[in-house]
Amino acid sequence: MKVSELGEFGLIDVLADLVKRDPSKGEAWSNLTIGIGDDAAAWRCQSETQLGTIDALVQNVHFKLDTISWEDLGWKSLAVNVSDIAAMGGVPRYALVSLALPEDTQVGDMVSFYRGMLELAGAQGVAIAGGNITRSPIVTVNVAVLGEEGPSGALLRRSGAKAGDCVAVTGRLGGAAAGLRMAMEGLKVENGTALERAFARPVPRVREGLVLAENGVRTAIDLSDGLVSDLGHVCDASRLGARISVDSVPLADGLRQNFARRAVEWALSGGEDYELLFTCPARTVETVRDSLDCEITVIGEMVADPEARVILLDGHGKEFRLSRSGWDHFAGEKHGA
Amino acid sequence: MKVSELGEFGLIDVLADLVKRDPSKGEAWSNLTIGIGDDAAAWRCQSETQLGTIDALVQNVHFKLDTISWEDLGWKSLAVNVSDIAAMGGVPRYALVSLALPEDTQVGDMVSFYRGMLELAGAQGVAIAGGNITRSPIVTVNVAVLGEEGPSGALLRRSGAKAGDCVAVTGRLGGAAAGLRMAMEGLKVENGTALERAFARPVPRVREGLVLAENGVRTAIDLSDGLVSDLGHVCDASRLGARISVDSVPLADGLRQNFARRAVEWALSGGEDYELLFTCPARTVETVRDSLDCEITVIGEMVADPEARVILLDGHGKEFRLSRSGWDHFAGEKHGA
Repeated sequence: MKVSELGEFGLIDVLADLVKRDPSKGEAWSNLTIGIGDDAAAWRCQSETQLGTIDALVQNVHFKLDTISWEDLGWKSLAVNVSDIAAMGGVPRYALVSLALPEDTQVGDMVSFYRGMLELAGAQGVAIAGGNITRSPIVTVNVAVLGEEGPSGALLRRSGAKAGDCVAVTGRLGGAAAGLRMAMEGLKVENGTALERAFARPVPRVREGLVLAENGVRTAIDLSDGLVSDLGHVCDASRLGARISVDSVPLADGLRQNFARRAVEWALSGGEDYELLFTCPARTVETVRDSLDCEITVIGEMVADPEARVILLDGHGKEFRLSRSGWDHFAGEKHGA
Repeated sequence: MKVSELGEFGLIDVLADLVKRDPSKGEAWSNLTIGIGDDAAAWRCQSETQLGTIDALVQNVHFKLDTISWEDLGWKSLAVNVSDIAAMGGVPRYALVSLALPEDTQVGDMVSFYRGMLELAGAQGVAIAGGNITRSPIVTVNVAVLGEEGPSGALLRRSGAKAGDCVAVTGRLGGAAAGLRMAMEGLKVENGTALERAFARPVPRVREGLVLAENGVRTAIDLSDGLVSDLGHVCDASRLGARISVDSVPLADGLRQNFARRAVEWALSGGEDYELLFTCPARTVETVRDSLDCEITVIGEMVADPEARVILLDGHGKEFRLSRSGWDHFAGEKHGA
């Protein structure tokens, strides 16, 4: 059945019912006093400081329907926003979901979309509090996620870096770009599942963000546009430069093996890895590493630089040139996901 | 200059600067601890209960660029969400703004859009806390507004109506539909300014919502889709029917005079008036009326009806038939705004 046959309010009923029947409901749900179906949602907040972020995924700009499933798109639409809360060292709590859909969209596809989203919501303790559905010639998904500061009461900013800080990242990079390429070309590679998942099912680093904040880290950003571009935002906000040792950037499992020629470029500028980049003194890196299961890799340092440049150095200490430095929604090349 | 020439981050800088320099900043701004330019916004909340809503305006579905100015579109994008908070009896505080734009959008038009939005934000004490900008083949504006419960601690629901309650509305109806028609046809009519403004610059009934909540009203909805459709939501949620006297529905100034043939239809189902519809005992209507400057009109009553119908009655007590009952984003006719 098409959504135009069911109508806006019929579709809302179907999705609201799906949300209501979802079993994986944590603390946020019990504080949600008014959910889907009124003029606005209402919830009791657990912390004085609230966090809020919004992000859009636009068909044929951020994704193509032939390279990502509706279920993965649902997961990812929520994940990219939860990742922003993680990058603040916050706890994601509530999501408001705005869907703009062509009339011939299948109701079953919308159910799949919500299933994928609810799967991540359940894993992260996020409650789907409300939303909006409207007609549009192309699919556009907007999700706003509201969150709260963690128990430490500290937040991670882009502007807190200090000269001499280590630059470190969680996990490994470049996997999402490889997964996107595989999806676009229908490519299967050895040990490629992790790459596919890095693209289709990124797991926001919420726990990691909280641990960073608790251990005295004050500067972080999530890697959505690409390492060089996102580190550039930290440099701009902190009025510092950064020197990165390209050889130390951790490549996703199977990345070099399968995509040797582009592996490093994707790790530096592919985007969509949703790992956290943070800066702090070397001793803090050690404390953080002891408290986390995930890999933590120091890839460079913050330096005084009035021009706030990100300088990439190869194994010989020579400057490494990148063909493009990240994702700009107007200037960048099209993502084909 | 086109936004593609300035780039995503250049455009964000221009708009962030505009927001920063805006002089009309109230209480919400002083509680905004992290605004535009980090992974998420952060604010100190003033009340335990938070409200959240999100709404989309899609080019050629909700508006056309030849019938609304960018400045008015900015105002309206925020207004439709603020209206949802008003309909809960809440105080709007923070907005997250997500813009999806064609590459050839003019930077000056985006500045106008933000000027219009900031004008309403200033008037309502709303802080623009953050947002997102991305490329898209069509303009799509999503705004999420976060708010808080008012001093009374009571919220207005769709589900609280009781049989015997009066059905009342603030202000007058049908003006937005007339204003839309005027914009579509380039029509000028006598005393038409109020109709044009009803369409382009709706003023959300925030104060009215607060006064309703303070005076014991527990049921309200804002009139976005049209009186019959929105009252239908109250009936569904409250499991009651409603009987409306068509002759008592207050028509916008100049509406009957200029659009005699369609005046009543537009007041009943034109949509986008953003007045509040509420239900309560007759004596509460009187209290509310004494506390407000705006017109309050009783247009009918809530009745027991297992089918939750909205029944329209003409001056002879005969059922009045409407050609269409409101706005459904998939089934409805196109708005041309």
